[in-house]
Amino acid sequence: MYPLTTTAPYPKNQWYIAAFADEVSRAPMHRTILGKPVVLFRTESGDVVALGGLCPHRMMPLWEGELIGDNIRCAYHGLTFDQAGQCIAGMGEGPAPAKMRTPAYPVVERWQWIWIWTGDSDFANPSDIPDHDALGLGSPDWTSQTNGYYHLDSRYLLLLDNLFDLTHVNFIHANSIGATMVMLEAGKLTEKDGIIRYSRERGGVELSDFHKRFSFPGYEGTVTQGFSSEYYGPGFVNAMTYWKPEAVNDDREYLGAINFVHGVTPETATTTHYFSAVSRSFSLENDQLTQALCANDKKVRGEDKVALDAIERQLELIKDPSGEVSLPADAGGIRVRRLLTQQIEAELAA
Amino acid sequence: MYPLTTTAPYPKNQWYIAAFADEVSRAPMHRTILGKPVVLFRTESGDVVALGGLCPHRMMPLWEGELIGDNIRCAYHGLTFDQAGQCIAGMGEGPAPAKMRTPAYPVVERWQWIWIWTGDSDFANPSDIPDHDALGLGSPDWTSQTNGYYHLDSRYLLLLDNLFDLTHVNFIHANSIGATMVMLEAGKLTEKDGIIRYSRERGGVELSDFHKRFSFPGYEGTVTQGFSSEYYGPGFVNAMTYWKPEAVNDDREYLGAINFVHGVTPETATTTHYFSAVSRSFSLENDQLTQALCANDKKVRGEDKVALDAIERQLELIKDPSGEVSLPADAGGIRVRRLLTQQIEAELAA
Amino acid sequence: MYPLTTTAPYPKNQWYIAAFADEVSRAPMHRTILGKPVVLFRTESGDVVALGGLCPHRMMPLWEGELIGDNIRCAYHGLTFDQAGQCIAGMGEGPAPAKMRTPAYPVVERWQWIWIWTGDSDFANPSDIPDHDALGLGSPDWTSQTNGYYHLDSRYLLLLDNLFDLTHVNFIHANSIGATMVMLEAGKLTEKDGIIRYSRERGGVELSDFHKRFSFPGYEGTVTQGFSSEYYGPGFVNAMTYWKPEAVNDDREYLGAINFVHGVTPETATTTHYFSAVSRSFSLENDQLTQALCANDKKVRGEDKVALDAIERQLELIKDPSGEVSLPADAGGIRVRRLLTQQIEAELAA
Repeated sequence: MYPLTTTAPYPKNQWYIAAFADEVSRAPMHRTILGKPVVLFRTESGDVVALGGLCPHRMMPLWEGELIGDNIRCAYHGLTFDQAGQCIAGMGEGPAPAKMRTPAYPVVERWQWIWIWTGDSDFANPSDIPDHDALGLGSPDWTSQTNGYYHLDSRYLLLLDNLFDLTHVNFIHANSIGATMVMLEAGKLTEKDGIIRYSRERGGVELSDFHKRFSFPGYEGTVTQGFSSEYYGPGFVNAMTYWKPEAVNDDREYLGAINFVHGVTPETATTTHYFSAVSRSFSLENDQLTQALCANDKKVRGEDKVALDAIERQLELIKDPSGEVSLPADAGGIRVRRLLTQQIEAELAA
Repeated sequence: MYPLTTTAPYPKNQWYIAAFADEVSRAPMHRTILGKPVVLFRTESGDVVALGGLCPHRMMPLWEGELIGDNIRCAYHGLTFDQAGQCIAGMGEGPAPAKMRTPAYPVVERWQWIWIWTGDSDFANPSDIPDHDALGLGSPDWTSQTNGYYHLDSRYLLLLDNLFDLTHVNFIHANSIGATMVMLEAGKLTEKDGIIRYSRERGGVELSDFHKRFSFPGYEGTVTQGFSSEYYGPGFVNAMTYWKPEAVNDDREYLGAINFVHGVTPETATTTHYFSAVSRSFSLENDQLTQALCANDKKVRGEDKVALDAIERQLELIKDPSGEVSLPADAGGIRVRRLLTQQIEAELAA
Repeated sequence: MYPLTTTAPYPKNQWYIAAFADEVSRAPMHRTILGKPVVLFRTESGDVVALGGLCPHRMMPLWEGELIGDNIRCAYHGLTFDQAGQCIAGMGEGPAPAKMRTPAYPVVERWQWIWIWTGDSDFANPSDIPDHDALGLGSPDWTSQTNGYYHLDSRYLLLLDNLFDLTHVNFIHANSIGATMVMLEAGKLTEKDGIIRYSRERGGVELSDFHKRFSFPGYEGTVTQGFSSEYYGPGFVNAMTYWKPEAVNDDREYLGAINFVHGVTPETATTTHYFSAVSRSFSLENDQLTQALCANDKKVRGEDKVALDAIERQLELIKDPSGEVSLPADAGGIRVRRLLTQQIEAELAA
């Protein structure tokens, strides 16, 4: 099954994150998304617009152009396009033809993300975007931060594999997250409301000094610790770590949870835009905890980037990585690959 | 029609500029022309020789070799080739075989250009080289200068498009040439003696302060201003700007004209050698004017290079640029493309 | 015949040099050999191990891992492989499957070389490795040194061509080896015990001042000087230069000989690992001579690298180098090419 075909390495009819909200402004911005050049900008009233990035006349990058009100004017011959991608002003020789248009991609600004749909716009349904509130992103009951952009010189699938086999934490992240006994437990694969979840739990765990001091001060007793990788789509994965109380008389479902949120957007077949966010349900006002978590998260993602890019370089050398061997711990990742393959094949057949 | 096929992106049976005359000396020089490695040098009497650049023995670049009189000796095993490309001295084991030869390309030195023909030499006719005198290049009635070499990381066709749609002047060159009202006029496409010409004119134009002071001092009255793109072949385009007098009693055809001459030589399918020259028919002795024109011309060509290279990078990403939409102002460029396509197809069929 | 197919540019069932012995240690080392990523390390008792360099689980480069005793543990998920390439420890969820294994390549440490066989291991026979003693490598009757590693940005075949047409010495190496009259003699091609030998000799040669002073002090008289290129396989060539005495009453076969030994290991289809060694049979204790020979050898190989890499760049431009023309002096090189072609075709047919 793996690798996916290089001509159709990702499903197109999906929401992906195009940018952090604060990256998009009145200065036209360029980003390649699923192999397509895209220009992003904001209207005078602040709405985000995403258009096919090349002027249909002679393929000049529109991000070299400038905004005239809510329209964008090409730097080359001055053709001007409105928010729908229609050319509305030409070059002094009469109106531009109707077919002079560039695609306008559906975008949704939610929390700190700009979501984009570059597939068949008939299927673009904003309600398919993951529920940010449930993930604590922008929710008043959580504290949440974006935490950096990474450019991966590796295919998005390597990142999905990475996020669904967290046994790697004990090795790649030995000096950041550190060895965690819970990773020795057998994982459990479940699926609900279209979300694939691969989880591990271990009971009777002593809280670390760090968590006793910063995360759950005052709590006495052991906990059940858990890790859960949650797949919302090829472009969005949540890696949740949580603690359930085992203390007598503590009947809360969770003592607390942290979501390490991963925006995963294929740039090309072998490179990836990677957007980070972190949210937590406890000690909301503790800035020191926020800073410690965010700094460590940056270290962790940097470690992953080094590994994934090293793998990609070798994939390009050996050409055919079809000989890989999987393990029980890969059940989650394999389920994700199957779903991706189905989605891609359905799009190819359509 | 566009893009031209990548296997035959340019016609071969054409004269192209290989180099400025002062680039070619007794030190063998390397240039890739139409995808072929070429070595250029001068004989002891000063004639220019252009040979296939690789030794036919083991493909060593001949430009690493040295001249022995009017012959070139390969740096690797010492094989020596005469001006006709024939190996005339071998390695001490008898004469070199007759088939040990490298192509000798017809070259013509004219004004400051070295012209080359790398196609079928049976068709190489020096009289097909554009008339330099008529363009003022080296003519005593004009002043003329070469004005720099540019390496474009973009296909030659993007430059031809650029030169045949001068509406871009008002945008890309807003800070160098500046907005020119004449570009708002409808263009006129004509063809004569094999030269495709796309022209625009506007009457009743006031001369700018610059031209009043430097170009046509003493002239009183309005003028008809014109721009004309003239295609002599894929390798040679003249962008002429002229002023016709409208003053009473001034019956000259032109008050003056400037030719911005463009040598366009495909290096590979996606890169281009670009040679610049400028000539003018007025204020011949005014060095200050020469310097101002040449400096501005360099700025203009630099602006074009930035734009064309930016387009090429995107063409390589999107692979298929066939979706472009044309406008009335592209009539000249489209005529050029049609001619190119005919020429390439005729060569493929031969 | 030339070029060899790009999909099978080299025979695989051959011994090649993977590394100098002192390059391989307890720190896992990476080298790409015949297009395959390989990891090399030493066991606690000092034996060299060479394994397929990518973890079969998710293709992580094993050289990023660490040694646990004589086994190597992958840096990503901790899978651990023994010297046979078998995974012996997994991730806490039961034993690794038997098919979780990476190839173990036969290696032989001989003198200062680590030899490797990445082809079909059924055919790996250490007795096929060239006789180091006969070449003076490590022999007590000779003095021998390794003399540097070179990375060639050119295909290994260009180096074999180079080594079998030593007429190039008079040109490329005019400032290092210098012009040698013996190269004007006709060469002689012989074949014995599977070794292809191309030799030239000239009698009545005066020894140079250098050799009178450093190499053969006390010897009076002329010599027969010889050069001989000896092909042991695609991975190993000896360029021998020797002097035979012509003095009365001197009945030694050789006055002395120097072997310039060439380890030639394809890295990819167009890049090469190049290992140097030098041995000589005379003036064994003369360190000044050793230093002079080694310094000159480095200059010579550097000159070859420049030429071969320059050719490779042009081969990539012109795509098809099939038009080359050969000479009598190429007889040795052409015999080598024929043998290579036979070997490759036999492997493809198997």
